Amino acid sequence: MAPHLDLDLPAPALTAVLCDLASPSGQEKALADSVEAALRSYPHLTVDRDGDAVVARTTLGRDSRVVVAGHIDTVPPAGNLPTRLDGGTLWGRGTVDMKGGVAVALRLAAHVPDPASDVTYVFYDNEEVEAERNGLGRVASHRPELLRADFAVLMEPTAAAVEGGCNGTLRVAVELTGTAAHSARWWMGSNAIHAAAPVLRRLAEYEPATVVVDGLAYREGLNAVAISGGIAGNIIPDHCVVTVNYRFAPSATEQEAFEHVAKVFDGYDVRLVDSAPGARPGLDRPVAAAFVTTVGGQPQAKVGWTDVARFDALGVPAVNYGPGDPQLAHADDERVDVAEIDLCEQRMRAWLRG
Amino acid sequence: MAPHLDLDLPAPALTAVLCDLASPSGQEKALADSVEAALRSYPHLTVDRDGDAVVARTTLGRDSRVVVAGHIDTVPPAGNLPTRLDGGTLWGRGTVDMKGGVAVALRLAAHVPDPASDVTYVFYDNEEVEAERNGLGRVASHRPELLRADFAVLMEPTAAAVEGGCNGTLRVAVELTGTAAHSARWWMGSNAIHAAAPVLRRLAEYEPATVVVDGLAYREGLNAVAISGGIAGNIIPDHCVVTVNYRFAPSATEQEAFEHVAKVFDGYDVRLVDSAPGARPGLDRPVAAAFVTTVGGQPQAKVGWTDVARFDALGVPAVNYGPGDPQLAHADDERVDVAEIDLCEQRMRAWLRG
Repeated sequence: MAPHLDLDLPAPALTAVLCDLASPSGQEKALADSVEAALRSYPHLTVDRDGDAVVARTTLGRDSRVVVAGHIDTVPPAGNLPTRLDGGTLWGRGTVDMKGGVAVALRLAAHVPDPASDVTYVFYDNEEVEAERNGLGRVASHRPELLRADFAVLMEPTAAAVEGGCNGTLRVAVELTGTAAHSARWWMGSNAIHAAAPVLRRLAEYEPATVVVDGLAYREGLNAVAISGGIAGNIIPDHCVVTVNYRFAPSATEQEAFEHVAKVFDGYDVRLVDSAPGARPGLDRPVAAAFVTTVGGQPQAKVGWTDVARFDALGVPAVNYGPGDPQLAHADDERVDVAEIDLCEQRMRAWLRG
Repeated sequence: MAPHLDLDLPAPALTAVLCDLASPSGQEKALADSVEAALRSYPHLTVDRDGDAVVARTTLGRDSRVVVAGHIDTVPPAGNLPTRLDGGTLWGRGTVDMKGGVAVALRLAAHVPDPASDVTYVFYDNEEVEAERNGLGRVASHRPELLRADFAVLMEPTAAAVEGGCNGTLRVAVELTGTAAHSARWWMGSNAIHAAAPVLRRLAEYEPATVVVDGLAYREGLNAVAISGGIAGNIIPDHCVVTVNYRFAPSATEQEAFEHVAKVFDGYDVRLVDSAPGARPGLDRPVAAAFVTTVGGQPQAKVGWTDVARFDALGVPAVNYGPGDPQLAHADDERVDVAEIDLCEQRMRAWLRG
């Protein structure tokens, strides 16, 4: 039997209950069962299940539809469960990333039966692991019609500020080759590590751009994230690889971003390792502008890659908005100010009611 | 029973027999037993055994004493045993490194009962592996009196040319540090791989010296042999290590060599990993000069590190001289011109007879 979830609990108390039902990636089934059972008890919701993802919709025939989404998995606990409430702070794994946001979304689903736009609530699994396991991606593949909408709010932690879109990210390997030789007879060879010197210099001297997209400023970055070369202490290395991560503004496609990096390393062998597109914030759409107006504050660009890019790929502009300091996500001292959870609920409720 | 070794066989045929008694490092016992038994049958020799090393001496009361030495282990066979004689070429593991030299030394021990200087023949184990297992080092520690001499010839492959002394070698780690951060927020960190750019540039631009010592020219070298940094594809690396190998002329001590490298990387954290001293060729000593005159040719500096450095550390100047192209040592197509084995034997015999 899945534990009963009481969606009448205040959002901070519900957050603590959700965190204490530990659900590291791959072990979300019990929590998904509880979420599904709780939502099925509300007659104004139509509930679907796909693996350990639960989708609940209002079907009021409104002119527009919005998505409110959150992942129910966390990174593994680090001795920081059960949660502990100390003054106004709730400590423990998941309090920031992102069961505070999930608690808010569950309460909105239960207690806003008559929203101005129809709402699709998505609670999904496996966000903290490899992209191919991601529950939102799986729902998008199995049931794309469930995710159709005019706008989406992903309730990732943003300290209750609107963070729009996200940078794209790609990795390339810059490969240097040389000729192996015994290091006592180094002149018979050619040193591939020495050949990396100009590559590192270009990285050190590179000045990343800040690009304004839909009114938000995206700060780019180009960084070596790995280097390796050499096979023995007496061999001139014939191979050296510098792995470079490029974070690019959502105005560029993945192809354009790769071409930019290839140009930075012109003259070198540059191989694409992996890439993921950015997402435009879409704040020029009326439904998005209304959201920003209602929740208030100055929207910021999201620099990290998040699942808003999956919505963007489906044609749904999306923003991040949720309780918790993103710098504390995954930290051993993960903790949230419970007032921020309540604040997010109030503002989301005001927006949904229109 | 150890196989019988017939030291009346011509040196090329004896080389083939020695190679076919495969003896990769650590598995020399059977061959050491055969060598010991063969040498004990000659009454003009005093034979000692230490582990799998065999030392045989003449004790004629001469004014000077010379050492003729060789290791009896090889690197592991690579499908290249038993040996194969094709025209004048003997193919197989050990033909170059260094059972041709061992065959010559065994025949000299057996058939030069009346040398001009007393002779100490040393056949030792575990040269091809970690320094602490080296049989010559073990004899030097257990029985240093057995190695006392005025001059030593190490019969490593030199294509029958005198190669004097050897360069020293040391390794340092140049450590770069930074500050870790998520690569989407790279400005919160400091990239340790980017910080390696000037280190690699100094290596690429370094011009190694050639240093004349006792009349021989030693070509130095300074090379990166390894580089590593980075722990994940989305983390700004806070650590990068460049491992550098310095090959230095035997005129410098290990301490002087380290100070030179520390100066090259002035401003960086430079840590000594390991070092081994070089060896002066000692060609200014009369006994060494007589050797060079007798065997002929233009002596060259040895650039690789060899066990001549162990003799140098005992105060015994030493040279390398033996049959076989050193470039073919350890190669799958290891092979020796048998005429070169005979030539080395003739010249060594002429020198010992004085």
